[in-house]
Amino acid sequence: MELKVQPLQIKAGKFKVVLNTADAKEMGIHGGDRVQLKDHSYLTAIVETGDMIPKGSLGVYQECCEKLGKICPLTMNVVPTTRPSSVGFIKKFMDHQKLTQEEIYQIVQDIVRDTLTEVELAAFITTSYIHGMSSDEVEWLTRAMIDTGEKIEFDTHPIADKHSIGGVPGNKISLLVVPIIAANGLLIPKTSSRAITGAAGTADLMEVLAPVELGADEIKSITEKVGGVIAWGGATNIAPADDKLIHAEYPLGIDPHNQLLASIMAKKGAVGADIVVIDIPVGSGTKVPTMQEGKKLARDLIELGERLGMNVECAMTYGASPVGRTVGPALEVREALKVLETMEGPNSLIEKSTGLAGILLEMGGAAAKGHGKDMAMETLRSGRALEKLKEIIEAQGGNPDIKHTDIIPGEHHAEIPSPADGYVIEFDDKRIIEIARIAGAPTDKGSGVWIHKKKGEIVKKGEPLITIFADKNWKLTDALKSAEKDFPIIVEGMLLERVQTFRVM
Amino acid sequence: MELKVQPLQIKAGKFKVVLNTADAKEMGIHGGDRVQLKDHSYLTAIVETGDMIPKGSLGVYQECCEKLGKICPLTMNVVPTTRPSSVGFIKKFMDHQKLTQEEIYQIVQDIVRDTLTEVELAAFITTSYIHGMSSDEVEWLTRAMIDTGEKIEFDTHPIADKHSIGGVPGNKISLLVVPIIAANGLLIPKTSSRAITGAAGTADLMEVLAPVELGADEIKSITEKVGGVIAWGGATNIAPADDKLIHAEYPLGIDPHNQLLASIMAKKGAVGADIVVIDIPVGSGTKVPTMQEGKKLARDLIELGERLGMNVECAMTYGASPVGRTVGPALEVREALKVLETMEGPNSLIEKSTGLAGILLEMGGAAAKGHGKDMAMETLRSGRALEKLKEIIEAQGGNPDIKHTDIIPGEHHAEIPSPADGYVIEFDDKRIIEIARIAGAPTDKGSGVWIHKKKGEIVKKGEPLITIFADKNWKLTDALKSAEKDFPIIVEGMLLERVQTFRVM
Repeated sequence: MELKVQPLQIKAGKFKVVLNTADAKEMGIHGGDRVQLKDHSYLTAIVETGDMIPKGSLGVYQECCEKLGKICPLTMNVVPTTRPSSVGFIKKFMDHQKLTQEEIYQIVQDIVRDTLTEVELAAFITTSYIHGMSSDEVEWLTRAMIDTGEKIEFDTHPIADKHSIGGVPGNKISLLVVPIIAANGLLIPKTSSRAITGAAGTADLMEVLAPVELGADEIKSITEKVGGVIAWGGATNIAPADDKLIHAEYPLGIDPHNQLLASIMAKKGAVGADIVVIDIPVGSGTKVPTMQEGKKLARDLIELGERLGMNVECAMTYGASPVGRTVGPALEVREALKVLETMEGPNSLIEKSTGLAGILLEMGGAAAKGHGKDMAMETLRSGRALEKLKEIIEAQGGNPDIKHTDIIPGEHHAEIPSPADGYVIEFDDKRIIEIARIAGAPTDKGSGVWIHKKKGEIVKKGEPLITIFADKNWKLTDALKSAEKDFPIIVEGMLLERVQTFRVM
Repeated sequence: MELKVQPLQIKAGKFKVVLNTADAKEMGIHGGDRVQLKDHSYLTAIVETGDMIPKGSLGVYQECCEKLGKICPLTMNVVPTTRPSSVGFIKKFMDHQKLTQEEIYQIVQDIVRDTLTEVELAAFITTSYIHGMSSDEVEWLTRAMIDTGEKIEFDTHPIADKHSIGGVPGNKISLLVVPIIAANGLLIPKTSSRAITGAAGTADLMEVLAPVELGADEIKSITEKVGGVIAWGGATNIAPADDKLIHAEYPLGIDPHNQLLASIMAKKGAVGADIVVIDIPVGSGTKVPTMQEGKKLARDLIELGERLGMNVECAMTYGASPVGRTVGPALEVREALKVLETMEGPNSLIEKSTGLAGILLEMGGAAAKGHGKDMAMETLRSGRALEKLKEIIEAQGGNPDIKHTDIIPGEHHAEIPSPADGYVIEFDDKRIIEIARIAGAPTDKGSGVWIHKKKGEIVKKGEPLITIFADKNWKLTDALKSAEKDFPIIVEGMLLERVQTFRVM
């Protein structure tokens, strides 16, 4: 059917067009069906139907116009076409039949190309969550995620990498691990993520110090030059399917096991990692509540690594309490830099960073078996890690002369005093993250929470429990209100109804 | 955040707004999250993010503007808000935990109110397909579907109803069953559907004779006046959740068992049916391939009926071959009317219609046990069924004097002759439906397929196998091309490569 083109000044996120309900009926087409648009070139688009577009016209979203060469033609011939074969494979997956490598590749490719509707993508994710996947299928999923994106190939080996399963607040260890590894001669091209539900991802942290939106070629050249990089993976085209899957999973609040595995390992595989250490924080409130689940996840990651030709080790870490005493980009970076500059800082941060770095040093042959942690600690103590971080900052385009005292947290802040003498008996990590987010983290770099008292610590009445920082005063007010409504910390013997005394500084 | 309102001249099908990516980031909001719009009234809307809307502005889809009183305010205060509780219940369902009656009601209500995103709705449907539901849950789902829509209450009882599980082409029996029942004093307020993937739904058929877009009050008053009605359910607000579920299931090509049950029985429950006969066509190509599956479905329908206070009987019918010899609105109506006028016509149509009507007559006490079919046959033969159908046509606003010879199929037609002497050994129902659809059915009322030879029948070389009718010549050409590419009928001994000789009349 020849239709008059009506460009819609809006992006749909996919190749989509809108047909008048009567025209759609005439063509026997329903919403969610596909049509082929014929002009000088061909394009398959997903149909919405509605009465906003007059009969005889075709509403064309931005992406289609761009694909067809920026300026839409005046009319287009619209012909019904079949669904992509991957929709049939998703149906097969729903029916709990095993998928072949080619079928999984096709699904992933269609995810990357945005040719699946939201309903189809959601069906894939929901089925992944319910049915899971066999080891073969997970391997194929991972390979497909690698192969449908950009890959980095280094001439030197081994290539080291590190990943932390999320869920624990204040986990700023990459800022220490990466320079420790690079300072000892191993290459570590670390791609990282921004926080979606957390208060600061590694990319959010590094951005306080230097630009993180680097392309794959920059990641390669910086790593070859100074030994390491801390980039935002989202700026690259590395394993692009992952981002699309995460965005569709987010509204459901799920993270299917097979996709967690594939997501981690695809990003490692795409940068050509040979040795990988994975930090699995265990504890209530994290993604891995029990040691048993942690071990299962570790085994699955190691097996998947073997299948992909990577040497993987996992470390289960204490995840029931924040790492260090800061949550939020600037606060966390300040704390990490202080450790690098002075070795002064929270033990939880120093121990965890050197422990994980030590494993990688041993795996890469830089340290003898059993001596990795000592070497990591020595790299930190000697200042070589700090020097290396400065080189990385400079190579990424930041200021290498920055000191921890230069990093100023949000100008608006309020401390919350303890209403009683006693021990901290409850400390809700999730609420701390929520409060940091309401205060503006991770977008407002200065926003976050400074933790004065962790679980098990003793506090006197009137001493501060936490300080909330914010770049904007109204966000501080909102964060205080939220803290007041459902306070994250309980001090033994305190009267819950008297918590609401806040002092704005 | 106070944002400048930019009304989008387009419908989203839901309450949706578009935020600039930077504003969304500032508020810590992602696509698929909800915001509350505050003006003089409150409205919760689903967020899309994009760069088409400038920073500081809010793209507002049509539905939100209408809800807020047709004219959008100039600015609106936008505040993040939580997901509806039903999203949590869907997550619980994914985790294979049993849902309570309240939780299911909440999900159905949110489906009806369009407050779930496509991803959330797809997750519910996919989970329904994979996990299924317990008998309790199916009952609650059905009750929720009834209670979230309009209901009809009659003063007289019993109310009879009839439903056919789809999948068999040419199933025009409602045009005979409804008047037979009504002619014998039982009330039968039949709501029916239009074809989505078929060539003609009962509503598409009846529309050839009379308007079918009737409100619930008209369905009630016409039924009370003449004993029966054949209306399009989609024009009413009866069990509105069903339509929304079907639209989300359609792209996945699935029909979860629990939703099939609930969908049928909710529509019967909402019109106050006391006695219901359900036609279950069994055979390859239908929704129910084996007798065993048919029996299971029948048991589930009967049990659900009991739970809802309805007396349900099921009849498994032969579904491997079309009912009668016509497929497509006008052709089918012509065939059905001819039977009503003359008792001449395909045995498959007469036997099936009187068989099902007979069951209902016995259930309703109009016929003695074992005499229902005879009574139905007599009602047909005597012309009382025809008289009753005319009354129904007139009451719905159609022309009661119509004769089968007045119904003219599409002016463009072509017959496909047999390329050989022999028996029809293969007959592909699904391809027949596809060809009828390509020819224009169900939208183009005159389009369809007239079947001259069914499976098992003998044919001479050159005798017609089928005739394709179309209202538009280009659709006839497309249908012929499709038939040529993959011909639906195989005659014993025919040379497959010589099928492509068509004669356009």
